[in-house]
This record gives sequence, C-alpha cells and structure tokens, in this order.
Amino acid sequence: MNFYPIKIKALEWINGRVRWINTKLLPEVEVYEESSDYERIAKAIEDMEIRGAPAIGVAAALAVAATVYNTSSDSVEEVKSLARRAIERLRKTRPTAYNLFWALNQIEEAVNKQYSTVEELRKAVVDKALEIYRLDIEINTRIGEYGEKLIDDGDVILTHCNAGALATVALGTALAVIRIAWYKGKKIKVIATETRPVLQGARLTVWELKKEGIPVTLITDNMVGYVMYKKLVNKVIVGADRVLLDGHVINKIGTYTIAIAAKRHGVPFYVAAPTSTIDPYTPVEKVVIEERSLDEVRKVLNKILITVEDVEVYNPAFDITPPDLVNAIITEKGVIEPPYTINIKKALGLS
Amino acid sequence: MNFYPIKIKALEWINGRVRWINTKLLPEVEVYEESSDYERIAKAIEDMEIRGAPAIGVAAALAVAATVYNTSSDSVEEVKSLARRAIERLRKTRPTAYNLFWALNQIEEAVNKQYSTVEELRKAVVDKALEIYRLDIEINTRIGEYGEKLIDDGDVILTHCNAGALATVALGTALAVIRIAWYKGKKIKVIATETRPVLQGARLTVWELKKEGIPVTLITDNMVGYVMYKKLVNKVIVGADRVLLDGHVINKIGTYTIAIAAKRHGVPFYVAAPTSTIDPYTPVEKVVIEERSLDEVRKVLNKILITVEDVEVYNPAFDITPPDLVNAIITEKGVIEPPYTINIKKALGLS
Repeated sequence: MNFYPIKIKALEWINGRVRWINTKLLPEVEVYEESSDYERIAKAIEDMEIRGAPAIGVAAALAVAATVYNTSSDSVEEVKSLARRAIERLRKTRPTAYNLFWALNQIEEAVNKQYSTVEELRKAVVDKALEIYRLDIEINTRIGEYGEKLIDDGDVILTHCNAGALATVALGTALAVIRIAWYKGKKIKVIATETRPVLQGARLTVWELKKEGIPVTLITDNMVGYVMYKKLVNKVIVGADRVLLDGHVINKIGTYTIAIAAKRHGVPFYVAAPTSTIDPYTPVEKVVIEERSLDEVRKVLNKILITVEDVEVYNPAFDITPPDLVNAIITEKGVIEPPYTINIKKALGLS
Repeated sequence: MNFYPIKIKALEWINGRVRWINTKLLPEVEVYEESSDYERIAKAIEDMEIRGAPAIGVAAALAVAATVYNTSSDSVEEVKSLARRAIERLRKTRPTAYNLFWALNQIEEAVNKQYSTVEELRKAVVDKALEIYRLDIEINTRIGEYGEKLIDDGDVILTHCNAGALATVALGTALAVIRIAWYKGKKIKVIATETRPVLQGARLTVWELKKEGIPVTLITDNMVGYVMYKKLVNKVIVGADRVLLDGHVINKIGTYTIAIAAKRHGVPFYVAAPTSTIDPYTPVEKVVIEERSLDEVRKVLNKILITVEDVEVYNPAFDITPPDLVNAIITEKGVIEPPYTINIKKALGLS
C-alpha cells in the first residue's frame, strides 16, 4: 500500500487517551481536545466536535479502549461490564451512521471473549480499537486509489458536506479520491457546497482543501442546479453515512437534491465509502434519519438568529438517494456498479 | 376587483417622498426609510433594502417621480434632463429583474412627451408612477385570484425566496396566491426555503406568513429533494424576476434546483408573476445574470464569517429554469400553460 502523508490529524490515540480536532470550531481556530472519558467522547460525537461516519466509528472504538485502558479494577467481569456500559452509551450518540455500529460491534465481540486477566482483556480491546484505527487509514488509501481512476485531468468535481480527513482518521473518503488524483498530478478543481445547516462544506472542506493547495470554489447549496446548467461541473463525489444492500445511499442532507440535478445533466454521481458503511440488514423504510436541534436551522453556527425566533422548523440531518441516481460506489474493495444488490453482495462476500 | 387589506406596507408614496420598509433589517427590527433622492433610492435597490422584481420596478418609478416632484427648476428641459439622469442611474441598479426596465420605460415615455410647463410635466410623471404603483396592487390581486384556483384544501406549498408583500406594493405574487387561498378558507401550509445567501425565505417569507397566521415551516435549501421524497409537498409556487417568451424563468438562485426536484416527484411547479416580468425580446443566451458580492456567501448577513476568509466563491443571484419544468405561469391575465411561446404571445396581445 502506498502511504500519502497529510498534515491534518483529526483523530489520534495517545497513551490511552483519545485526541481529536474540535471540528465545530474550524476554520476559526484549530483546537485539539483530549479525553479518556467515554461520556466526554460520546458528547463530542453527539455535539459534532467529532463527525463524519468513519471518524465516529473509530472514535467510539477508541473511547471504549480508553475506558478499559484506564480502569484500575482487577476484575475481568467488572471491566467487561464497564466496557459494555461504554458501548451502550456510545451506540446512542447518533442513529444514522452505520460505521458506528460496525465498529462498536467489533469491540463488543472482543469484550465478549474469555479472558483470565484484566491485562489480557485490556490488550485485546485496545488492539482491536487500534486495528480499526489503522484499517481506516488503509481503507481510505484504497478508496482514493480506486476512485482516482474515475477522475480525468481537468475535471471539476462537486462535493457536499465533508467526507475528508476531518471525517476519518486520514485522507477522507470522497476527498481521498480528490487528494490522490491531485497527488498524481491531475489538474482538478473542486466546487464545495456550504452544506447548511452545520456548514461542513464551508468550514471543513474549504479549510482542508486550501491546506492542500487544491483549488476550491465555495457555493451555497441551492446553486447546485445552476452550476450544472452552466456546465461548470464534470463529476460529483460524496461520502456516505450508510449504504443499503440495494444501493440506497444515506448521506448528509442535500445529497439527494444534488443527485437529482446530476441525473438531469448527465453528470456522474459517485459515492465513496468504506464497506463498513454498508448495512446489509436494514430495508430503506426502516432506516432512522436523525432529526437535530431546530436551532441549527433558526440560527447560524449558534451565533446569529436568521429568522423569527419561534418558527416551526424541519431539520433532518440526512437524506436518502435511491440507487438509480448513483453511478458507482467507490469502496476499498473496488468500484461497485449497478446492479447493486448482486454486486454489493459479491464485494462483501455474502451469498 | 376585490380588495384584500394586509398589514404590511412595503412601499408608499407620501407627499412627494418614497417610504419603504428596510427588508435588510427584517425580521430583527421593522425600520422604515424615507427619501426623495433618487441616488439614495438607487442605493437602497442595489443594497437590497428594497428587493423583489415588482417592488424594484415600482420603487424606481416613484424615485423618478419624487425627483421631478421636488425640483424647484422652472425649465421643462432642465427637469426632463434631471428625470433622464435619474432614469439612467436607476436602470443600472440591478440587471436581471425585468420589471425595473418595464417601469422605467413607461416613466421615460411620459417624460419624453411635450409639456409647456414644469407643472404639467410633474403631474404627468407623478401620475404615471402612481398608476404603476396602483397597478401593482391590482395585478397582485388578480394573480392571487387566478392562482388560488390551482390550490386545493389541505395543500402544502413550497415557496422559495420572498415573492410576497415585501417584494411588491401589496399581497405579493406567489404569496398572493397563498394569501387568497388562505383568505378563502383553504387549510394550507407553507414550506419556506431559507434562500441562501441573503436568506429572504428565513427572514422575509417566514415573517410575512407568521404575521398573517398562515402555518409555515422553515427548511434549508438543500432539504428540498428530501421533503419531496417524503411526500411533504403538493405544490411549488415561486415568483420570477424575468420570464422569456419561450417560458424560461429567471428567478432567485435555487429556483432551478427546486424545479428539477419537483419534476422528478411529479409536484406541480408554478410561477406567479405579472406580465410586466415577461421579456419578449431577449433570448435565453443573452440574459444577464447578476453576480453579487462574494462576502454574501463567505459571511452570513454580513455578520459572521463561515469559511476561510479568502476562499474563491461563485455568487450568481439568479438562475434559469427551462420551460419543460414549469407547469404554468400565473399572471394577472390568467394562467398561462405550455406551449409558452404561443400562449404568452396570446396573453400579451403580440402576434
């Protein structure tokens, strides 16, 4: 595997503590938080200091590891039930991103094995969390390498929200594709949608890409149709919070609207996501779409009120893009094309 | 004609002075500005204190009238050239809204006639401006009455930007349809898109509708696809800044993206606009789309920076919706359906 060094370290494990960049404060200030307390880390996920499906999964795994790492108990059963409390708490942070459940399930499996000492249990849980951490870097690299083959020299790529280094351990998913195309010398440009209400595009994607020197132009979310009408975009690449077996893509609110516009204009619409994002069990009707605080819409960044104080608001954090709008899903196992049910099963080794 | 009294007076003529509500400061504070200086009024239009295609047209006409009304010159030629300077200045305020040129052309025609005294000239120009003013109220009423027939009891109507009382002299265009349906007892609800970058939906449409007691829910612009996916919307009604003979609709940025989503979901997409918005001369390739200050996007309401300070930005104020996405255009002369070129010519009495 190639190694692509990048400057941004969104998430780290430092001697039994989890360290993360507080993405809520970007790009104004670059503040790092550190904790070994799973409750603190759960709040950081709920409050979107840590956000992005892969980052949430890894952070939750590290939070359980930190809990087990730092306990002074010498009872295996006591530590196991402490770990399970942490897992339960972290599972409740955000309902939509599938990687969270994928990562916590793996940690839970490690916890549930037989151990004769706390030291053994501790080592097993920390090793599993660090494996998930390292795997994320590896996966992002592979996603980027498979995906960059879809990118042509001179492309202008529209991306939504932030599926970048600030949403993963490193490189990102959609932005891994963009990064690696750029590292390989392709002269590309990016159009970033601001991504209301939380403005991850304006705050995070712009900051990340400018740090790399990749040309980026910011637009408001409602300009998507017009930039395609003006033929200013060749490709769309977004991340995903959950991908269903039949190819439905659950991702940041606004993704679906972009996909509809891309279809009208014949602009290829790609989703970049690790296979840990794929939920092979839930049918689309059963997917829980998180609804967040109404003040996210009524205010901007919790700083200024932009409307009448008590106006009714609808604030779904994600939307659902049907498979007919998705040209391909770029994973660490290769680029998956329609028909999705068959090809996703094949990629996951399901029968 | 029926008369529907409403509480909001966005634009008035008070003894030779123009009075307007400063829409930039809404909904935080309700501030009225007053001036007889065309330069001040031109700046109010450029700066969007006065906005909305019909309101811009009327305000420009009143500004010329105020100029002529208040001059102490007794030379007809001097006053005519003063009026022409005012007209030229006002024509340069905003390039896209067609009503501006329509109104100023009418005023110019009045100026160009033969007069033996300044008093005669003054009366002719003021009368013409007040005729344009009163006509706007009458037109909005008719648009509302024709349009409300398209609305069913129980409809949820999505609207974009503000095509309301704050964009006209009274009632609005899209919101005249909604108002009159409501006055007639139809139990309707409105979904208002916030309309970045200037947030006319969040600031103005929400304020207007809450003042009327019409139920309104605010969403961000990128939620449009998802609210249609969830079948939360039955109809879309928007205003227009310019309508071309072949049915292309130029309106606030975001309109086109909404129209694409409406088409996918079979949601009727209506445009409500006076025939003074119809530009029978310009082909779509020649329409000038105004691009505004980059800080409108980089900041929110010029108060807080939401991105990296020097990021490149694209900020077209309008977009173009092709006729295949427009189910009907609701005008004061009736509801115009496709094929547009023939039916618009018929409505305008063109051959």
